[in-house]
Amino acid sequence: MYNDPVWKVKRLNYKMTVQYDGTRYSGWQRQGNTENTIQGRLEKVLSRLLAEAVAISGSGRTDAGVHALGQVANFRTEQRLNCGDFLLQVNEALPGDLAVTALSAASPRFHARLSAKEKVYRYTIWNSPIPNVLERRYVYQLAEPLNISTMEDTAQLLLGTHDFKGFSTGRTKKSTVRTIKSVEIRTDGPRVELIFRGNGFLYNMVRILTGTLIESGLGQRAPESVNRVFDTLDRQEAGFTAPPQGLCFMEVIY
Amino acid sequence: MYNDPVWKVKRLNYKMTVQYDGTRYSGWQRQGNTENTIQGRLEKVLSRLLAEAVAISGSGRTDAGVHALGQVANFRTEQRLNCGDFLLQVNEALPGDLAVTALSAASPRFHARLSAKEKVYRYTIWNSPIPNVLERRYVYQLAEPLNISTMEDTAQLLLGTHDFKGFSTGRTKKSTVRTIKSVEIRTDGPRVELIFRGNGFLYNMVRILTGTLIESGLGQRAPESVNRVFDTLDRQEAGFTAPPQGLCFMEVIY
Repeated sequence: MYNDPVWKVKRLNYKMTVQYDGTRYSGWQRQGNTENTIQGRLEKVLSRLLAEAVAISGSGRTDAGVHALGQVANFRTEQRLNCGDFLLQVNEALPGDLAVTALSAASPRFHARLSAKEKVYRYTIWNSPIPNVLERRYVYQLAEPLNISTMEDTAQLLLGTHDFKGFSTGRTKKSTVRTIKSVEIRTDGPRVELIFRGNGFLYNMVRILTGTLIESGLGQRAPESVNRVFDTLDRQEAGFTAPPQGLCFMEVIY
Repeated sequence: MYNDPVWKVKRLNYKMTVQYDGTRYSGWQRQGNTENTIQGRLEKVLSRLLAEAVAISGSGRTDAGVHALGQVANFRTEQRLNCGDFLLQVNEALPGDLAVTALSAASPRFHARLSAKEKVYRYTIWNSPIPNVLERRYVYQLAEPLNISTMEDTAQLLLGTHDFKGFSTGRTKKSTVRTIKSVEIRTDGPRVELIFRGNGFLYNMVRILTGTLIESGLGQRAPESVNRVFDTLDRQEAGFTAPPQGLCFMEVIY
């Protein structure tokens, strides 16, 4: 009975918060037989512990090499779980670079992706010629000094509801209109953190927004150049795709 | 001329600050032919770049697996260096888990170990059953809750000048008397940081002090039990040796 492959009919729904160091993974989304994805690894562990086929839905995909402190996913099962005990069991079975940091019963209608109202991403730049050894896996080191004030001007022009097609890669027939609520730039010595809040982000969008902000901070483009990306929807008009290791998926707000 | 093996007679003296992720190293000190030490790796790079045999003196040894944000070392050479340029060259030649974060000319009499007045170490405990994935290499995870107030009582009894022989391993004929200036306990959610400041620390001393503080925080020993370690100088009376990965050598004060 617990082997029912039609997971959508299972009655109980659980929400979990997931943390991972994306360095050695091919990203969030399960891909065929490869086990080297976060989703695939989690599903394998949950399926083994629950002795039934468990499918999980993430709030959004992250690319290869991107990290998460607050990814959210849900899964359905017929089994009533003691969330505290099960959380410890799951973490014991997971490798050190992947953990479930919270687990709770969710309403039957909760869906990690469809119910999401806002997502928060952080991109960390280590703006110095001197490396940051202990955080090297989680920052993008950039030796040339950034003009933060120019970056703030650029960030202002990204806010609001726009068609962000030019700030993404990949093809989709779905809408590429998104709303960015805020882009906060925090500095602490050589550390520059870009905090993006929005109702959703397209494929590679945060990394391309970051690359565009960096180019403006290096004086390689004017802040107003982002308007041309909105007008033309042309990926070539936007900045480079900043490398994945600086990106961390922080939080989903429901 | 620059191949002179008698490094002590070289005229110019340079001070450098060194940062490392100790995870894959056998500690600071060069050991025969093994290259897997911080000192060995640094000497190899400096010797190659300067085309002369360079020997470096560290302010103190760190064990296998222990990290550093502010280790200090000095080396002598006949060559006058442009410190800014040379720093970049050195870091380009070093692996990602090891960096020189500062380099400056020092007075001829400066010696990283002998001139040190105070050293600062930090031990980080992640006091939670939930792992800290991104910092897993730099914290010691402890699921059982610590009583911080008891640990503070214990820390008070460690302050001052004592014979710390019982809080160290290894044999030495030198004095085992040291002065601990302060032990600060900082908490931030599940993070518990122990900051030790003193005029010097014996082999394994910070890790054994940490193990002793942890045992008192778990209710396994009374704060006053440390007096028995001072009285007997017996290693068996002190706490366990906390694992290396939580330890970070923060700073040397001259």
